Amino acid sequence: MKCRVCKQTAAVALPSHHTAFCPACFAAYFARQVERAVHNHRLFTPEERILVAVSGGKDSLALIHQLAGQGYNVTALHLDLGIPNSSGPAREIVAAFCAAHGFTLRVVDPAEMGLSVPEVKAAVKRPICSVCGKIKRHYMNKIAYEEGYDALATGHNLDDEVARLFANTLRWDRDFLGTQGPLLPAQGKFARKVKPLCRLSEFETAAYCFLHDLRHGATACPYSKGASFTGHKKLWEDLEQRSPGSKTAFYEHFLTHGKTAFAPLAHKDREPLQDCRICGAPSNLETCGVCRIREQVFAVKEKAGADLCGQGREAKNSL
Amino acid sequence: MKCRVCKQTAAVALPSHHTAFCPACFAAYFARQVERAVHNHRLFTPEERILVAVSGGKDSLALIHQLAGQGYNVTALHLDLGIPNSSGPAREIVAAFCAAHGFTLRVVDPAEMGLSVPEVKAAVKRPICSVCGKIKRHYMNKIAYEEGYDALATGHNLDDEVARLFANTLRWDRDFLGTQGPLLPAQGKFARKVKPLCRLSEFETAAYCFLHDLRHGATACPYSKGASFTGHKKLWEDLEQRSPGSKTAFYEHFLTHGKTAFAPLAHKDREPLQDCRICGAPSNLETCGVCRIREQVFAVKEKAGADLCGQGREAKNSL
Repeated sequence: MKCRVCKQTAAVALPSHHTAFCPACFAAYFARQVERAVHNHRLFTPEERILVAVSGGKDSLALIHQLAGQGYNVTALHLDLGIPNSSGPAREIVAAFCAAHGFTLRVVDPAEMGLSVPEVKAAVKRPICSVCGKIKRHYMNKIAYEEGYDALATGHNLDDEVARLFANTLRWDRDFLGTQGPLLPAQGKFARKVKPLCRLSEFETAAYCFLHDLRHGATACPYSKGASFTGHKKLWEDLEQRSPGSKTAFYEHFLTHGKTAFAPLAHKDREPLQDCRICGAPSNLETCGVCRIREQVFAVKEKAGADLCGQGREAKNSL
Repeated sequence: MKCRVCKQTAAVALPSHHTAFCPACFAAYFARQVERAVHNHRLFTPEERILVAVSGGKDSLALIHQLAGQGYNVTALHLDLGIPNSSGPAREIVAAFCAAHGFTLRVVDPAEMGLSVPEVKAAVKRPICSVCGKIKRHYMNKIAYEEGYDALATGHNLDDEVARLFANTLRWDRDFLGTQGPLLPAQGKFARKVKPLCRLSEFETAAYCFLHDLRHGATACPYSKGASFTGHKKLWEDLEQRSPGSKTAFYEHFLTHGKTAFAPLAHKDREPLQDCRICGAPSNLETCGVCRIREQVFAVKEKAGADLCGQGREAKNSL
């Protein structure tokens, strides 16, 4: 197969675009897709300071590498959630990557603040993926907002966005359908959120990392098995195989024709937010969701401690 | 497995409702679903005259049988589109069925008016399923409107509606999303269109026919191979297997939360309709789509005739 642009031997075939590229032309294509997302949706400008959430996976490494390559002012943010056999290696990958490319790295450790995923999972009786997502969003927003970054960029790719949009569409959830997209403007204590990779598939960010020799983490989170989005992604892979271009059409037409229909109806009945009494984060209750999770974790620990003391006393008495 | 209602042995398992029924309780469930669709969406009243489009397949036979059983005033309409090895047997099934149940049957023969599917397929360079659908809708509306029926009922089931809704959602087509549903009110020369089986799956209408011993046609149209909806139906079967109740949730939430968002935006820029100069049907051009198809069929026939004459002349001259 030949590169569509320069006619050299192609290295990456993209059936959804009916095309193929050599490594250099693929890099140019990748850059163009990011430029288009940034430009079309007015995500940020070259003068602004961008905090890039970097997990150590292919998407976030490709994102910060590409944005830096385009001359944007980027700082990496990594969250350590204390997941056994996962968080440690990911943190090392990110540290090595940022050191090698000269990126400033900010590491936040929710695990050290009583919010490690194993402890949270034991204390909170809800699907761990949604709880973990809540904690991550909380700290990403907190750092971006409190430290005055102009935008918080995440590595969500087209497949992530399509799976999420599909899940929201299955329920016709007006609040999410009215706000989902590559740009969520800043509001109150919420920093601006941007997704510059929204035009690029998972396969494309993987190809980018491979061709740029970016060493990224590749093991799935040990807790993510059976997450609902996995099934949706598989469904969309099949649909894309059957009808190349479906994912892009679904997402792009949503942004132009779907979202605008729901935007006036989103969050119509929502109560105004207040500041969390503990951490000050915006919250719809007196205590924000993350502080409530921390309280639950502490309560479990206290009970375990009390039980242990009780057992100790019982053991003593039985002597 | 036991019937949820009477605890007799169940004959029909419905995982999407987490239930199973014996034949009698399934019949009651089926009737209730039709009643709900008619009542919730105000499809028609017992005083009105309903024209039921009957193809000879399980859905349309179940529909007219059920509506008549509920005491509605129904008349059957069958269209013969001259499809080899398909239309003839279907017409016979419908005639026998209507005779056996005492339903008045109205047969219309587009095939005799220059619109048989093989001739149309040869003359029109568009996917035959969409052209055939256009012809069917044209004649169903014509009879319902000109003969003063209050509503035209079709046997579209939940699977049909979900596949169609999904196709419209893939493109975020505002015109279709703003109008799709079990009720399309009468407007101008368009009769009211209703889909009383919209809460029942293909499996459920098949079970209804089986349990009521209704002999229906079962062979797919020989021209429908590769129709786009087939793939969507397969995708939704997989999703329903993975997550029972998905189809109902997608369709019902669309009616309450999705459609209402698009309704104000549908057909906003549409030109006003005019009467077709040939047949008087509502049309956005001077000649309606069906009369244009007929003209194309005649043009092909004329050309074939002229070619034949030409060959005759040439043959004569060469003698």
